[in-house]
Amino acid sequence: MARILTGIQASGRPHLGNILGAILPAIKLSQNPDNQSFLFIADLHSMTTIKDAKIMQENTRAVAAAWLACGFDAEKNFFYRQSRLAGYHTELMWYLNCQTPFPMLANAHSFKDKSDRLSDINAGLFTYPVLQAADIVLYGANFVPVGKDQRQHLEMSKDIAAAFNRTYGEVLILPEALIDENVMVIPGTDGTKMSKSYNNFIDVFLPEKPLLKAIKSIISDSTPLEASKNPDTDITFKLFTLLADPNEIEEMRTNYLNGGYGYGHAKQALFELIWRKFEKEREIFNYYMQNTEALEEKLKAGEEKAKEIAEKTINDVRGVLGYL
Amino acid sequence: MARILTGIQASGRPHLGNILGAILPAIKLSQNPDNQSFLFIADLHSMTTIKDAKIMQENTRAVAAAWLACGFDAEKNFFYRQSRLAGYHTELMWYLNCQTPFPMLANAHSFKDKSDRLSDINAGLFTYPVLQAADIVLYGANFVPVGKDQRQHLEMSKDIAAAFNRTYGEVLILPEALIDENVMVIPGTDGTKMSKSYNNFIDVFLPEKPLLKAIKSIISDSTPLEASKNPDTDITFKLFTLLADPNEIEEMRTNYLNGGYGYGHAKQALFELIWRKFEKEREIFNYYMQNTEALEEKLKAGEEKAKEIAEKTINDVRGVLGYL
Repeated sequence: MARILTGIQASGRPHLGNILGAILPAIKLSQNPDNQSFLFIADLHSMTTIKDAKIMQENTRAVAAAWLACGFDAEKNFFYRQSRLAGYHTELMWYLNCQTPFPMLANAHSFKDKSDRLSDINAGLFTYPVLQAADIVLYGANFVPVGKDQRQHLEMSKDIAAAFNRTYGEVLILPEALIDENVMVIPGTDGTKMSKSYNNFIDVFLPEKPLLKAIKSIISDSTPLEASKNPDTDITFKLFTLLADPNEIEEMRTNYLNGGYGYGHAKQALFELIWRKFEKEREIFNYYMQNTEALEEKLKAGEEKAKEIAEKTINDVRGVLGYL
Repeated sequence: MARILTGIQASGRPHLGNILGAILPAIKLSQNPDNQSFLFIADLHSMTTIKDAKIMQENTRAVAAAWLACGFDAEKNFFYRQSRLAGYHTELMWYLNCQTPFPMLANAHSFKDKSDRLSDINAGLFTYPVLQAADIVLYGANFVPVGKDQRQHLEMSKDIAAAFNRTYGEVLILPEALIDENVMVIPGTDGTKMSKSYNNFIDVFLPEKPLLKAIKSIISDSTPLEASKNPDTDITFKLFTLLADPNEIEEMRTNYLNGGYGYGHAKQALFELIWRKFEKEREIFNYYMQNTEALEEKLKAGEEKAKEIAEKTINDVRGVLGYL
């Protein structure tokens, strides 16, 4: 039984790019009967940038509701907010802090990158890779699915845990990166990678009208309605191919090439596809967003379950440190 | 009712310098009925340098036993090991990390100083002032007795807590430094400040023979037995004056000046004074060092009591962060 761990930033309502690029692949992994997935909302990490309690809570709820809506099975797996087990995460973080060379953090890409951009460089941001290491080893995770840009952080987690083991014995399980070479890049409405920060995203949980409006904002060229169009350079077509069946895709491709089929038609088809495809997800998402108590209950049950694992690791660690 | 907080490094058996310079003044403060003293063994901090579980445990026990031996009233006050409440300390530390500007830590004297000397510069050492801030505000301490060299750290604690309050409202109590201008400097056997690191200390808990041997190692000049001696430049006399009654001091001063009184006589007198003066302390210290269960019980009771205060603060903090 392999333990697979994924932390999700509490950055608000996931968009189509998040769902296709991260949520659905992670859910697929979690469905494998040989795996146990640990999925947590990294709301302690979000704190390095979000300072407003209301925004933090709303973001957290939206992320949790979206994962449940997309089919994450919180009973088979582990599903929790990092903040509700903060004592375990941060206690282990302190022990790992004492094993983490200062230069390792000072030289991390992400810190160098952020410290150039942000005015508010705080100690949380600086030591964030150590908290990340604690998040992982606290649950004895064997694998952490990461994008290529996250590979360095995972190497750091592993190095930090290995340093602890060298000092105190083989207590912590060393995690391995699970790098998906075929990561889908989902284009946003402007053709660049779909991202909250570029404000080019499509929120599939929107009601009908705003969803249609968002899809209509996808950029297209000025080829006239009658003319033949190149599907392979068009954003609407690209998004359509990520969601549609092969015969639907073929049909739209033919329409593009034949001409007499405008971008407006394609966008209407994409809207209808998204509206239909995410119907159940939208329903569940809205249910949890309106019934925060039901969501809370789900999360609390997950946190009780995760706590057992965290407690066991912390006790093992305290034992070798002489803190028992 | 003022809350006064003191953290003690788990650096092993306190020596005469620790007892006269730190332990007894702190105990005096704790006896004031208007004060409540929070006295904790900072064994999470010690971790930045001590990596051996056995040494950590022995050091912790010795420190705890010495404070009890010197008369600290753990029932009236609060007495606990930081490690046993690690989750609360480190959780608050994380929240404060996110409020602590990176440059504040990078520019702290102690970090600059240590990073020049130590080969093992870890992230624990770097963020240690933030843990210190958490240690203090977790218990709503009003005052922290510090030496002048610790003033900067306490200012940092206050600044960090104030930054948190500016962001989230007036949740944390801002601590003030309590600076004792009349700090006694206790000379070691070589005349420089008594310190474990100079190996010039006198351990008052030693058995008779090794104690006498330690006192005999005090450096003296080569004035012959018969000659008159200057008491004011002699280390043995200086130590004697710190412990003896005024008439005993006067008598020894006369002996020094008259001549016919050797340093060996003075050392014998100092030994007898220490042996007699710390008789009860030695007994209690040895009792707790031999009955570790009794010591453990005392500490656990203190930790239960401290936990109530820590829990209240953490709950207040979680509330304003949106983590409840």
